[in-house]
Amino acid sequence: MILTSKNNPLVKETATLKEKKGRKSLNMFLVEGRKMALECQKSGLSIDRVFYSEQYDGERLADLPSTVLSDSVFRYLSDEKTPQGVLCRVKLPALELVPPTGKCLFLDGISDPGNMGAILRTANAAGYREIYLTDDCTDPYSPKSVRASMSGLFFVKLYSASREKLLETFKDIPVLVADMHGENVFSFNAPKRYALVIGNEGNGVSKEVKAVSTNTVSIPMQGTQESLNASVAAGIAMYLLSKKEFQTE
Amino acid sequence: MILTSKNNPLVKETATLKEKKGRKSLNMFLVEGRKMALECQKSGLSIDRVFYSEQYDGERLADLPSTVLSDSVFRYLSDEKTPQGVLCRVKLPALELVPPTGKCLFLDGISDPGNMGAILRTANAAGYREIYLTDDCTDPYSPKSVRASMSGLFFVKLYSASREKLLETFKDIPVLVADMHGENVFSFNAPKRYALVIGNEGNGVSKEVKAVSTNTVSIPMQGTQESLNASVAAGIAMYLLSKKEFQTE
Repeated sequence: MILTSKNNPLVKETATLKEKKGRKSLNMFLVEGRKMALECQKSGLSIDRVFYSEQYDGERLADLPSTVLSDSVFRYLSDEKTPQGVLCRVKLPALELVPPTGKCLFLDGISDPGNMGAILRTANAAGYREIYLTDDCTDPYSPKSVRASMSGLFFVKLYSASREKLLETFKDIPVLVADMHGENVFSFNAPKRYALVIGNEGNGVSKEVKAVSTNTVSIPMQGTQESLNASVAAGIAMYLLSKKEFQTE
Repeated sequence: MILTSKNNPLVKETATLKEKKGRKSLNMFLVEGRKMALECQKSGLSIDRVFYSEQYDGERLADLPSTVLSDSVFRYLSDEKTPQGVLCRVKLPALELVPPTGKCLFLDGISDPGNMGAILRTANAAGYREIYLTDDCTDPYSPKSVRASMSGLFFVKLYSASREKLLETFKDIPVLVADMHGENVFSFNAPKRYALVIGNEGNGVSKEVKAVSTNTVSIPMQGTQESLNASVAAGIAMYLLSKKEFQTE
């Protein structure tokens, strides 16, 4: 059977997952594309259902309930300009807020979904697998963030909470704020366990978080440039603070 | 006098600068926002004219021809959701293709304007001020790229040419390709003069450029991540290849 109507209850319900309100209410999010869906399944996240477009004739995900949609209904649910024809409903992982076991990332008001996804992608690559987000960050489970994370999102633990609760969690842990006018990140010796804080694109790190920071680390800049893109700065800082892990000699 | 019509010849002409064709034909591009305009003037680029919105009551740029536009006409020319009310027409710098004097960046088919701008922003900060672009890159002078460059674009030299011409220019210069399965960029000793190549977001570095590369450098990745966002990867590679300049001890 092929669903051909946007008014079908399953289609209508799934469409609500494009918005944060719907994701919160159904406790699920959307993952689109063949490779992303396969990586999601590999990560161990619980996939509720897979949708295929009528035209799709590629590999299918094993052992999962699935539904075929007419191409126009598929496009209605899709967030892509040229949809591949694979879309999953995935259960949001339920994690209780706990302190990090090692190095971790603390995102303080990141607002752009593209930056959010790119940061999660780099975090997974650089081994920052515990990520704490203030609840005024853009939703990491939005379609745009999920896509930009290139599967990185599936392999990290995401903890979202109020700034106050997060700071309570980090009260005994070194908090390294990435900001201007701090210690040169090239020479900084990071402890084994710490939080690296990346602030909002326009306003930087909040004063509440700055107030409890242990150190400020800075990326040196030449000439006229005063700041970097948030996801670029996060990437440079994560890799440089982890240099001992990555240097081969 | 306040221009109130979209059909005014100056407004119509300026609107063509939103597209590449118009920029090429008039040999100008648009710079929006008070701070960006001031930085542009500081960089020495030649500003043809400044437009202010009727509502704008902030600082004005000294010694430049200016025109006030009604708010609706200003919004028509603007690329911002909430325009600040300052927009400049700026002459495209005319540069003849010459080999780099030191370290430089070689962008091989970068297609996303946000990535392009973020790369130029980081390049300026990391001291890569000579940038070579294959002519299938997204236009660095598009409004989205200019905005994402956060003025970085004004302070670097941009050379756009065919891949063939660029490779001819680089025939005696070390070409370091950023790609998977290369030498660890943490341990790599970069020469004084080289081109760092960053490839297309989906397809990576072209086979033509790979064929002439001297070295491949890689950002080590843990776990399941296979690649990074192009602007993040460019940032990490630029800074790590320049570590001798930035390390303070």
